[in-house]
Amino acid sequence: MDKILRINMGAAGGPQQSIEKAGEFAALGGRATTSTIVGKEVPPDCHPLGAENKLVFAPGMLSGSAAAISGRISVGCKSPLTGGIKESNAGGQAAQVLARLGYAAIIIEGQPQGDDLYKIHINKDQVTISVDNSLKLLDNYPLIDKLKQEYGDKVAYISIGSAGERMFAAASIACTDPELRPTRHCGRGGVGAVMGSKRIKAIILDDQGCENRQPKDADKFKAANRAFVEGIRKHPVAGEGLPAYGTNVLTNVLNEAGGYPTRNFKTGQFEDATSISGETQAALEIERGGSATHGCHRGCVIQCSGIYHDKQGKYLTKQPEYETVWSHGGHCGISDLDAIATLDYWDDNIGLDTIEMGVAVGVAMEGGLLEFGDSEGAIRLVRDEVGKGTPLGRILGNGAAFTGKAFAVERVPVVKNQALPAYDPRTVQGIGVTYATSTQGADHTAGYAVATNILKVGGDVDPLKPEGQIELSRNLQIATTAIDSTGLCLFIAFPILDQPETFQAMLDLLGSFYGIEMTGDDVVALGQKVLSLERDFNKKAGFGPEDDRLPRFFSSEPLPPHNISFQVPDEELDQLYNWD
Amino acid sequence: MDKILRINMGAAGGPQQSIEKAGEFAALGGRATTSTIVGKEVPPDCHPLGAENKLVFAPGMLSGSAAAISGRISVGCKSPLTGGIKESNAGGQAAQVLARLGYAAIIIEGQPQGDDLYKIHINKDQVTISVDNSLKLLDNYPLIDKLKQEYGDKVAYISIGSAGERMFAAASIACTDPELRPTRHCGRGGVGAVMGSKRIKAIILDDQGCENRQPKDADKFKAANRAFVEGIRKHPVAGEGLPAYGTNVLTNVLNEAGGYPTRNFKTGQFEDATSISGETQAALEIERGGSATHGCHRGCVIQCSGIYHDKQGKYLTKQPEYETVWSHGGHCGISDLDAIATLDYWDDNIGLDTIEMGVAVGVAMEGGLLEFGDSEGAIRLVRDEVGKGTPLGRILGNGAAFTGKAFAVERVPVVKNQALPAYDPRTVQGIGVTYATSTQGADHTAGYAVATNILKVGGDVDPLKPEGQIELSRNLQIATTAIDSTGLCLFIAFPILDQPETFQAMLDLLGSFYGIEMTGDDVVALGQKVLSLERDFNKKAGFGPEDDRLPRFFSSEPLPPHNISFQVPDEELDQLYNWD
Repeated sequence: MDKILRINMGAAGGPQQSIEKAGEFAALGGRATTSTIVGKEVPPDCHPLGAENKLVFAPGMLSGSAAAISGRISVGCKSPLTGGIKESNAGGQAAQVLARLGYAAIIIEGQPQGDDLYKIHINKDQVTISVDNSLKLLDNYPLIDKLKQEYGDKVAYISIGSAGERMFAAASIACTDPELRPTRHCGRGGVGAVMGSKRIKAIILDDQGCENRQPKDADKFKAANRAFVEGIRKHPVAGEGLPAYGTNVLTNVLNEAGGYPTRNFKTGQFEDATSISGETQAALEIERGGSATHGCHRGCVIQCSGIYHDKQGKYLTKQPEYETVWSHGGHCGISDLDAIATLDYWDDNIGLDTIEMGVAVGVAMEGGLLEFGDSEGAIRLVRDEVGKGTPLGRILGNGAAFTGKAFAVERVPVVKNQALPAYDPRTVQGIGVTYATSTQGADHTAGYAVATNILKVGGDVDPLKPEGQIELSRNLQIATTAIDSTGLCLFIAFPILDQPETFQAMLDLLGSFYGIEMTGDDVVALGQKVLSLERDFNKKAGFGPEDDRLPRFFSSEPLPPHNISFQVPDEELDQLYNWD
Repeated sequence: MDKILRINMGAAGGPQQSIEKAGEFAALGGRATTSTIVGKEVPPDCHPLGAENKLVFAPGMLSGSAAAISGRISVGCKSPLTGGIKESNAGGQAAQVLARLGYAAIIIEGQPQGDDLYKIHINKDQVTISVDNSLKLLDNYPLIDKLKQEYGDKVAYISIGSAGERMFAAASIACTDPELRPTRHCGRGGVGAVMGSKRIKAIILDDQGCENRQPKDADKFKAANRAFVEGIRKHPVAGEGLPAYGTNVLTNVLNEAGGYPTRNFKTGQFEDATSISGETQAALEIERGGSATHGCHRGCVIQCSGIYHDKQGKYLTKQPEYETVWSHGGHCGISDLDAIATLDYWDDNIGLDTIEMGVAVGVAMEGGLLEFGDSEGAIRLVRDEVGKGTPLGRILGNGAAFTGKAFAVERVPVVKNQALPAYDPRTVQGIGVTYATSTQGADHTAGYAVATNILKVGGDVDPLKPEGQIELSRNLQIATTAIDSTGLCLFIAFPILDQPETFQAMLDLLGSFYGIEMTGDDVVALGQKVLSLERDFNKKAGFGPEDDRLPRFFSSEPLPPHNISFQVPDEELDQLYNWD
């Protein structure tokens, strides 16, 4: 990863490409790379869909190597949803292929005149940027089918559906899985809209003729990788729960804890939770000839995904994630797994963040557009309104906060305009701190305090009390920012938090790959550095302490069954970034 | 005005009223009263459409007296459009009647459960709050027709149309003129949505049996009033231009100055300006049997309004104001006065801010929804989409910024989310300072630097240069805030800026009415005090220096024909409130 590809889409006479030396970014990756570039090159007060914004793709530090589960790709920009800096990452094949092609980053800048639509093909010899208006308004599945006819199936695809072209703030960027299904999405923050604003429909990455990236100390690397994989496999969450039931294993856990936000965060338990739980879903997938265990990229040793077939035993979608099952399920009072899987398919196809879309639909239900529980209505909204770009689709496609404004709904679960994920911050107060203070807007992956609050991974902090949540969230946000830079899947956090030898193995993987000594302090320093520059960007974009708050109803409405409100004081939230 | 009426719409068992002594507010009025109450009683971080927001009505300090042109009523709340404090004022009969009834303010707080719709009847003996669901979704003209059957024509009506009930952020509050037409609107900032959120459809004010408010020093008051009226009548703008042609006299003036924002602020001159000028409009009104001279309330000595008849000689709407003719006209590339008057009628009827709606339609045109110049399309959008509450209507009805987001438009002329009025800040740099820094969002009435930049009233500051604009805007914002508290029409600013004896007459009017000595310093102190507390509210609501900025394109795109961009540096904008 010694080079950076820069493409100016707004150059006179058409897009222009240039190759730069990677410099400091040669030994960086993922979120550290995207946020550093965005922080340096994007004016914080620019319009997110204008020529001044940039879209940065970066594989992780270990992507493209033989390191296990190192296939996360980061996308960075100023977010059209939050108005702040955004890093959104996904699995799939893209990171590995891009890293093997030798690119530390792709920086897309400027904006073309006119309405031509472009695709970018990258192989070991060249980068080709071409107009292809035949792709206009294709959604991701038919788009990839069409591109496969031209580029085959030995490549990785990055693409946007119609939502990205229409620049909806809930638009995602899709990456294909090993079977070339566009199912792994950089979902959050509207990164797909920024790709749409650059008029880029797809990036085709072809690493034929490229080798794996080689570690500096091959023996140490091999040993570290072995210990790392062992550590993952022996951990109860990463080695058992996730492979067997996927992320949706959490439905029953959160519902039992009373932290499963139901019908737009009105209660913490859903009476139909078991009908949509991971256990039920896995059994159904197996029964119908799908699969409850599948990796989103080659080299994954957790295999938390799966394949969801319809009643006729035909592929419908990948195994819907916990957050998706929640947002389209419990949040909307919907308990029909097939309906939820259909919504997952349409989200992936149209190119939408499943969290933002599900929460938007639930907010519209609160606003009286549909009854809670109306699964047919929910499908109609996503498929026929958002998918066809109708005015109602433009409302929903711009996210939960936008939908709340359109329908004058007061109870809108967002922070920095981004929809809250599937953990009620009143029952899981640590995740509430993360939602409130993350540079990314409400984002469970930014500092997954659920681990320690509920799963008792990395310690045990009482989820119902304010004490200790700031420190917990701070430490997790720092660690997560570093992990988001390595290319390693965030689920390694479970074993590395619980098992010191697995944490050491991760340090050794990084150290042996780059030929350096890597310590825990280095990880913390990296995380702090990146978080600080993200926060600095947000401050310049206009964010202040009042943006580091949950919506007021979390403080004023106690949540059944625990009947507790969010208790962490504002003054403590304002201390989260005080680590200097 | 020795009492305040407080109505808690959220009380258990139904709305509850109470009467309080006016206290400090007995000698205050208008904006000073509404902003002080909102500042004291409304949490700056509350949801503007929730129970914590309050809606405050206040007549001016001189309203209900024999003082000329003292009929402005102020409405205050947290704005659902800007998210900051809002004072929106209008003419019509309401201020005079409310003041004669003895109320310094009506404070409406809380929020009822359920969807009953209420009306409030106030006469000298009692306040009656009653459910009247027969009024649901009536627009203003049919609503007033219906209410007149019950309450007659010796009253003043305050009401919302369907837009207010639907809680659109562009919804206005209508006040009836002397002929009981709902044509005088507290337009800006979505105050109608707040009234809708309180489920109040109409307030009927009946002052039968009440007398004019009496001055403490009757002789001095009478003499001051005479001098004041004389001063107004002899000024070329207030005594000649406005009575003859109305506010639309400005179309030719601004167009000649190259500061007439055309087709979403792309140029500063509209080739068809003369077809929609005040001169053309007045001739047409007279030709069709309407009138080019009409007062919005009894006691007005400027008479800047008029009556606009359709081709058949039938009443269509009141004389559309300059801002309306611009927003639906030049801003949208529309040059058909009848189409503009039709839009004015629908705005008034549905209950919409004409500036916000016109700018929203123009932004939608920029986003490709309609061609610029499509007058039939524009009418269809307002009448059939906004007026019927369709999803597209919900987009447009929530204002220009919201419409811009829905259609992913980068060039959106708003400050603090509120649409810019009819003066391009590149050609009239002083008004740009007011747009950027006003506590109200972009608002020409907040500090009308056009007066000195273009009309050469109150001095002469070159409109194309940054020098002197901060001081000009600062002084005008302070003076305006005070005038907005007196109940006097803002158009008295022209004579009082130019004629020291008319300024003195205004001071004498206030002084003799309250039996105090009133000096220019007192006016400045009042304006500063109110502005400071408004700004304090906004800070607590999350506004920072980055919110005191024009959209970036005003700095980056020079405006033809002068080819000048907005030049006032950010650091100077940040000095506007430094008067301590």
